[in-house]
Amino acid sequence: MTITGELIIGLETRRGSNGEVWGVEAASGRRIEPSFGGADLKDLDIACELADAAFNIYSETALEDRAAFLEKIAENIAALGDELIQYCVTETGLLRGRIEGERGRTIGQLKLFASVLREGHFLDARIDAALPDRKPLPRPDLRLRNKALGPVAVFGASNFPLAFSVAGGDTASALAAGCPVVVKAHSAHPGTSELIGRAILDAVTECGMPAGTFALLFDSDRSISPALVADRRIKAVGFTGSRDVGITFMQIAANRSEPIPVYAEMSSINPVVLFPGALATRGDAIARQLVPALTLGAGQFCTNPGLILALDGPGYDVFLDSAAEALEAANAATMLTPGIYKSYCNGVQKLEAHQAVRTVARGGIGENYQGQAGIFETSASEFLAHQELQIEVFGASTLVVRCDDLDELRRVVNSLEGQLTISLHVDREDYDSARQFIPLFERRAGRLIVNGFGTGVEVSAAMVHGGPFPATSDSRTTSVGTLAISRFLRPISYQSFPDELLSPPLSDENPWHVPRRFNKV
Amino acid sequence: MTITGELIIGLETRRGSNGEVWGVEAASGRRIEPSFGGADLKDLDIACELADAAFNIYSETALEDRAAFLEKIAENIAALGDELIQYCVTETGLLRGRIEGERGRTIGQLKLFASVLREGHFLDARIDAALPDRKPLPRPDLRLRNKALGPVAVFGASNFPLAFSVAGGDTASALAAGCPVVVKAHSAHPGTSELIGRAILDAVTECGMPAGTFALLFDSDRSISPALVADRRIKAVGFTGSRDVGITFMQIAANRSEPIPVYAEMSSINPVVLFPGALATRGDAIARQLVPALTLGAGQFCTNPGLILALDGPGYDVFLDSAAEALEAANAATMLTPGIYKSYCNGVQKLEAHQAVRTVARGGIGENYQGQAGIFETSASEFLAHQELQIEVFGASTLVVRCDDLDELRRVVNSLEGQLTISLHVDREDYDSARQFIPLFERRAGRLIVNGFGTGVEVSAAMVHGGPFPATSDSRTTSVGTLAISRFLRPISYQSFPDELLSPPLSDENPWHVPRRFNKV
Repeated sequence: MTITGELIIGLETRRGSNGEVWGVEAASGRRIEPSFGGADLKDLDIACELADAAFNIYSETALEDRAAFLEKIAENIAALGDELIQYCVTETGLLRGRIEGERGRTIGQLKLFASVLREGHFLDARIDAALPDRKPLPRPDLRLRNKALGPVAVFGASNFPLAFSVAGGDTASALAAGCPVVVKAHSAHPGTSELIGRAILDAVTECGMPAGTFALLFDSDRSISPALVADRRIKAVGFTGSRDVGITFMQIAANRSEPIPVYAEMSSINPVVLFPGALATRGDAIARQLVPALTLGAGQFCTNPGLILALDGPGYDVFLDSAAEALEAANAATMLTPGIYKSYCNGVQKLEAHQAVRTVARGGIGENYQGQAGIFETSASEFLAHQELQIEVFGASTLVVRCDDLDELRRVVNSLEGQLTISLHVDREDYDSARQFIPLFERRAGRLIVNGFGTGVEVSAAMVHGGPFPATSDSRTTSVGTLAISRFLRPISYQSFPDELLSPPLSDENPWHVPRRFNKV
Repeated sequence: MTITGELIIGLETRRGSNGEVWGVEAASGRRIEPSFGGADLKDLDIACELADAAFNIYSETALEDRAAFLEKIAENIAALGDELIQYCVTETGLLRGRIEGERGRTIGQLKLFASVLREGHFLDARIDAALPDRKPLPRPDLRLRNKALGPVAVFGASNFPLAFSVAGGDTASALAAGCPVVVKAHSAHPGTSELIGRAILDAVTECGMPAGTFALLFDSDRSISPALVADRRIKAVGFTGSRDVGITFMQIAANRSEPIPVYAEMSSINPVVLFPGALATRGDAIARQLVPALTLGAGQFCTNPGLILALDGPGYDVFLDSAAEALEAANAATMLTPGIYKSYCNGVQKLEAHQAVRTVARGGIGENYQGQAGIFETSASEFLAHQELQIEVFGASTLVVRCDDLDELRRVVNSLEGQLTISLHVDREDYDSARQFIPLFERRAGRLIVNGFGTGVEVSAAMVHGGPFPATSDSRTTSVGTLAISRFLRPISYQSFPDELLSPPLSDENPWHVPRRFNKV
């Protein structure tokens, strides 16, 4: 497939005339031809108008048709073959194996949501039968189902060019919910975005979905992104990226004449808590598990372990020495963009220069835009005194906080902001202590992990990739896993409807055989 | 029970020293002794601190214990007997039968949430079993359950002094979810609030719940309400009231350093759409059903039918004449407060004076603070030209919009803001037209009703009392019915947890026998 640099609006592709976005070879910083034409506000208006017009039809497509559409997108992505992999590796600097794995995850995610549609549980269909003889008042027939919120704006993420970008988790769950999607492509991988966008466009055409089901816009001057969040036809926003941009979007959304939900996944340092028993018996092993989790993908994971809380005592020094040794053997790795590389270097330099922080170890030095991993150390009292040490350094850097005892650990935990994950390393003898801490962890994170790290995020029913602010804008939700679909749904109740006017999932016949709660609480 | 005018903070009652709140006899406007001492910011701070301290214990109480606690509250409210009814009738001007019914609803609501707890579906417990042999990567054991958000602020509503006030739907669902609750009492019924508050306090003591599980504050100078929404320990807000106050709370919550969800139920005119077939055959009958729905409780329902969209043609004049006749026979009724009465009179006067509006009929004239019902009429083109005609007039007033044809009706519907309910009156011959309109209605309301009115709100599993902004601040939720509990929950995922560290609903044994989704999508 030829990459043209065009926007996708409706069933058409055409070149945007509002400046240019350039893809860049991550390893060298060199521009890649062709450039991508930026959308203007008129393009945005047409994309939103089409999405709005598509909504009534697309949101009521039969579940089987929508499932087939998602599977067709998956199929079309697979059919892009090695061209997609090569382009994505060039643009992102991520390793081929990682991108291949991410493609598998992206395809799997689309297919998983097809299963979610066929299973029908997500509709939360409920029927409270009429009780005409009830006293003092009869009960009417009441039926409830979830329905799509409306057109959704999705912002591609830099760090998952496939799994959290144009056809990633936000898009897959929004399309599954029945929401048309307008994607703003991330400038870190515009060519990859176009390839995936065309795979979706082809699926729209092949499956006969309405023209406004999908759009892909490039934003050359940061005018499109805020306007997209502000557009009155957009009813929800999915975003993964920086805290500053996420908060900006939250504020735009809150100040609309009709406020809308923003699902922003922003900032998390994913504390790892080493309890005394585990540290004493397995300090070395934990360190050797930590370093690969820290350096995987150049540390560019939302769930990267950026903070280690460890009890001073037996095993502490062993842990730190082993971690240092493993880290020093870790190669530098190309970061996603020159800008991300520069931010990482700034963040690490601040740690190195901080009077309360000691540099424990640095990884191998690389070239160009390769990030050098780092382990740093501070004391709990210094950590508590310096709020800035909680700021996420996006990349393979972590800060070890030495705690004198469990009371000090508790004060540190209570000082933490909201997180995506908190990991506990415990032996059986730590369980009583852990039980005291778990309620504190639950208040601060969406996922708790025992004796592991949060870096791998399973796409399944019981996954929560979310957490209290600022990890995300809405702790009631997840952006990974099947529950992500609920972000784009709202319940609607139908009272005393004749069967002829009910949608299939609520009709007496229930032709799609969706599960329904009948006369339950 | 003696009414003392005291605040409830922790397990204690004491008089607030920040000015006074006075209850008023609704019929006469006369003050009722005693006054209620207003809380100051120190009182608020203590209440929030206790709620925060209670959270870890209360949120993890056994489901059976929490259910018994809710039932004890219900029992204690019932035990207040006629004193509660008399006090509430005096403060609100609502009829004794209505208040007795509302007490039944309030008690029933608490018991219903006890059933929700015992049933356990609300936890959404999920288990994805480990797949240690999966390639390329093993899957860890993942378990998910919903957990309480944190302490919740509840604002009592004026128009449901029992069912949506101190122990109303917001409090019942938040307590059921496992959230401590800090209630700001509504000044329209402070004595009723104290009686109910003491019933809850007694239940807290009798059931051995932590001291901060419940608090009741009176706000004499509007300083407490915004400070409560802004308090860092509060994690969600339940509010039913005016659009202005709701929007203020939304903005305070969005501008906190940690933004939190606000569930504000604000403003709805609940359009009633009369399709041609129904109008032609039953114009008279519909009119005679409309007027009681309009004047019930002096029209002081969130779901009051404040807008009638009718097709000009056969039956239209019959409908309007019958409605006028029925309305003229309707007695005036005492409104909840002198302030609400005054607002109603202002709203009606604006309609009467509006150049595009014709007064069709007025109800009987009353005395003091009794509202006089009204039916007004305008044309669709005038309605479309005058946005101010969509503003809710809280009380027994409705505006009939005469539409020339279905196209004009569609334009009117498309101009509507978000609503709690939309009612359709249809005969079989209208079904094809109705099918075209239902998607438009779904985008604008949380509940659709066929051949009825939204005034009665069933408390059950399939009820949605919610809707797009400005009907509520969050269309993804309901404030009535069992689904209301989900407003105060967030999912948490537990990865590779040893059984000893899992909460009962996720442990292998599942001692409370909660339903769980095992290896599902």
